[in-house]
Amino acid sequence: MRVIYLKDIPGSVLEAKSGPAILLLFLGLIPLSVLLWLVHAPFLVLFSVSGVAILPLAYIMGISTEELGKHMGPGLGGLLNASFGNATEIIIAIAALRAGLIRLVQASITGSIIGNILLILGLSMLVGGLRFKKQTFQREAATTRSTMLALATAGLVMPSLLLLSSGTDIPSGTITSMSLWIAVLLLIAYGGALLFSLHTHRHIFNPRGEEEKPEWSKGYAILVLAAAMALVAILSEILIEAVEASIETLGVNELFLGVIVIAVIGNAAEHSSAVMMAWRNKMNLSVAIAASSSAQIALFAAPVLVFASILIGNTMTLAFELFELIAIGISVAVVSAVASDGESNWFEGLMLLIVYGIMAVGFFFLP
Amino acid sequence: MRVIYLKDIPGSVLEAKSGPAILLLFLGLIPLSVLLWLVHAPFLVLFSVSGVAILPLAYIMGISTEELGKHMGPGLGGLLNASFGNATEIIIAIAALRAGLIRLVQASITGSIIGNILLILGLSMLVGGLRFKKQTFQREAATTRSTMLALATAGLVMPSLLLLSSGTDIPSGTITSMSLWIAVLLLIAYGGALLFSLHTHRHIFNPRGEEEKPEWSKGYAILVLAAAMALVAILSEILIEAVEASIETLGVNELFLGVIVIAVIGNAAEHSSAVMMAWRNKMNLSVAIAASSSAQIALFAAPVLVFASILIGNTMTLAFELFELIAIGISVAVVSAVASDGESNWFEGLMLLIVYGIMAVGFFFLP
Amino acid sequence: MRVIYLKDIPGSVLEAKSGPAILLLFLGLIPLSVLLWLVHAPFLVLFSVSGVAILPLAYIMGISTEELGKHMGPGLGGLLNASFGNATEIIIAIAALRAGLIRLVQASITGSIIGNILLILGLSMLVGGLRFKKQTFQREAATTRSTMLALATAGLVMPSLLLLSSGTDIPSGTITSMSLWIAVLLLIAYGGALLFSLHTHRHIFNPRGEEEKPEWSKGYAILVLAAAMALVAILSEILIEAVEASIETLGVNELFLGVIVIAVIGNAAEHSSAVMMAWRNKMNLSVAIAASSSAQIALFAAPVLVFASILIGNTMTLAFELFELIAIGISVAVVSAVASDGESNWFEGLMLLIVYGIMAVGFFFLP
Repeated sequence: MRVIYLKDIPGSVLEAKSGPAILLLFLGLIPLSVLLWLVHAPFLVLFSVSGVAILPLAYIMGISTEELGKHMGPGLGGLLNASFGNATEIIIAIAALRAGLIRLVQASITGSIIGNILLILGLSMLVGGLRFKKQTFQREAATTRSTMLALATAGLVMPSLLLLSSGTDIPSGTITSMSLWIAVLLLIAYGGALLFSLHTHRHIFNPRGEEEKPEWSKGYAILVLAAAMALVAILSEILIEAVEASIETLGVNELFLGVIVIAVIGNAAEHSSAVMMAWRNKMNLSVAIAASSSAQIALFAAPVLVFASILIGNTMTLAFELFELIAIGISVAVVSAVASDGESNWFEGLMLLIVYGIMAVGFFFLP
Repeated sequence: MRVIYLKDIPGSVLEAKSGPAILLLFLGLIPLSVLLWLVHAPFLVLFSVSGVAILPLAYIMGISTEELGKHMGPGLGGLLNASFGNATEIIIAIAALRAGLIRLVQASITGSIIGNILLILGLSMLVGGLRFKKQTFQREAATTRSTMLALATAGLVMPSLLLLSSGTDIPSGTITSMSLWIAVLLLIAYGGALLFSLHTHRHIFNPRGEEEKPEWSKGYAILVLAAAMALVAILSEILIEAVEASIETLGVNELFLGVIVIAVIGNAAEHSSAVMMAWRNKMNLSVAIAASSSAQIALFAAPVLVFASILIGNTMTLAFELFELIAIGISVAVVSAVASDGESNWFEGLMLLIVYGIMAVGFFFLP
Repeated sequence: MRVIYLKDIPGSVLEAKSGPAILLLFLGLIPLSVLLWLVHAPFLVLFSVSGVAILPLAYIMGISTEELGKHMGPGLGGLLNASFGNATEIIIAIAALRAGLIRLVQASITGSIIGNILLILGLSMLVGGLRFKKQTFQREAATTRSTMLALATAGLVMPSLLLLSSGTDIPSGTITSMSLWIAVLLLIAYGGALLFSLHTHRHIFNPRGEEEKPEWSKGYAILVLAAAMALVAILSEILIEAVEASIETLGVNELFLGVIVIAVIGNAAEHSSAVMMAWRNKMNLSVAIAASSSAQIALFAAPVLVFASILIGNTMTLAFELFELIAIGISVAVVSAVASDGESNWFEGLMLLIVYGIMAVGFFFLP
């Protein structure tokens, strides 16, 4: 088994012979998406092509943030990876909010949290575990992160729990103002998390010995990142237009699209870099990416999208469905259990993937 | 920042100059409450004044139990602190039960558990963490306590879960007899907890090295405690009369009053002493107070109030609302996660407070 | 206090004088059950006699698997104990499915998971803790098992959560195909668990130093096991016929029968051997039996019974009731908390038993 390192391309050396061909094929999907959109191609084709076209861009964003992160050490680097991985999702979500697909955006928040934990961590542990019998990661940072994640999701799910437990007779104005209050509290927690991980307790998140030497210059990494983000923005518009049409004409389940499809596309950057790190036995970074990314979705992306939705004029509240809440709760409980011993193996990875698979079956069959 | 040590007053030395003035102002609220009640003052004024007047008494009870506790070592002292802190709450609850405010009492049980964990522990960790980068506490005692708490709340929430999952078509006689059975089981668990922590496994809860020398005599501490309890009983009657009127005339949310307001007033003793201990870097005591207090509410106060309610003639069952159950569940999960590593910092404290804040927003908006 | 070792019988030495009399009395219940069934005895008599008659057989199965397990080491032996303990349950469940008692079988799955965790582990920790102040078990194996259990139950409860959160308007065909998909995923996880515990990470589950010398030959153990299983199959048919009649004529609660009665009878083998091991201070085996047995129910017995039900023609889905799900969730959370420190004492055992008692009260009163 061989991993293609995209970062080796600038050095014009490709470790895998089929690498450049595959990459060009993928990158070729970007102009193809635009072309298909211009000729009003069938929605399913447009959806598939633009969705797949975002993947290499998210991957390139992953590589460039990975390189940029190396200039900053694993702790801050992990945070950077998480926030710019979430950038893909925020860009897609804003396009969806502008199109009025509020339910889809809520579902993609759920899906990102679940996916980051179960799918990223599961794949990382499985792939890493196939190569190494036991992989270890720094217990203190991992438990700090999983506690942070537990608290973050507790905050995020509270309004929905409230709504569910009091019936649906709450006026929508109340739900909106409750969501705004909670969004403010979540952003305060996010500010605290930044202050904590980047300033007062930096040492926990930036341990010695696992740092890699950057292979790109800082400027080059920023340039690639910016270009990829701009392309993602364009493709998101096309993707959401296709999603909108799919829902209308094909009657596809909006929740399934949001939780599974959009969340997977939006988090492909973290997926690829976390799995890459696990394969290279750097589980600290894998766990950091997965847990930070989930916490960032809950503490940063979710409140930002609540405010953005009000500015856009299609108000999104923090009222999720019961099944989403339970799925998030189980995911967080599972990651706490798995992270608490500071060790992983292939079977823990497989179990996380199976729980994800069962949730996917659930969201697919949900009417 | 300076902490006023009430216990220094008998020695006629006050470390803070403004200390005695503030204290006298607070203690002056006690006769004022009685006066306002005699002249039939407006309910909101009566509620505020008598509510605030209980605070210094609860604080004095906290100090005197703290002093009494020092004669007994930290383990037993922590238990004593918790039970006499809960004394404030039980006194207020009995006054409320006599007035027929059953829902309020149930809500104050929920609020005490949540508040003891999230608010006390959050404030302690935040305040302690502002002074010390990392605070440690004895892991074994903390996890034993958080497991005890988890089991206690599992017992407490079971009847409500049962009622909720089976619809509301259960005859009230069944609910009452189920609550009585469970109250008996909870009291057996409480007896076990006492036997365990005070006799067979005393060494876990009474470790060496953190004991403080008492500054009050045992007799003096008992005298002050008794006097404070008597005054709390009088003020509780006034407070509950005001609460009753507030609910009737102003339409205030009974659940919010119970969960947030009454629970905060009733647990002010633990709050002040736990935060004080954290500031002095005695996190063992802070965690002991918070966790023991919550467990005592679940295992002791709740079943005692069930039996008391039947004697009084206004039967209170153990049937809580879904949102309360979820709030308790999340709180217990969070304290387990936070306690499991035997360490705390300001950010963990902030996160606990933010989860509490979000729950308060929820209970406030609940119709 | 004296434990009667059944395994000593072949050596014709019985340590307790009343042992053989009690055993013969119990074994005598087997022909008595058949006789009572032939003469159409009252249902309650038939139910009691055949239910009690299964107990010594389950106990003999426990002893013979224990002996067989000694030929294989504690890890694989624990797995064997769990699977053949579950054999009793699967045999009873198939008899119930053939009689169309689908709800009873679902309830017995819930009851086995809860009972294995709370009742077995609780009794083991209490009984062991009465003799030893603190009992320790291998932390790594215990946390691996409790994580496995958490993931297994997450998979098992997912379809029910989905059904509950989407209302009851899902066509039954959808529920069946969802259950089948999830059953397949659970069996893949079970295969992974076997591969993990018996091959790739055998060393975690098969530590040195706690192995016991077998006292039966392999062939003798297999023979006794096979004979006991055949007798259990016959008694199960009689038991289920009596259960069916009890429900019809006496209006007994099917859920309570399944969760408490059938689950206790079906898991008596694990109960007896786990408690025996705890008494001999071999907590590794106790925890292994309880956790493995619960995980096996979720990953193996449940999907096997789904497939068996379709073959039999009385389709059983994985749709449990809300209270069952919550009971399972709390049980799993509790075992994770208790197992995470690798230590146990009598009070942890008592608390587990009290939570079980409260759940039993709940299931009894449930209409």
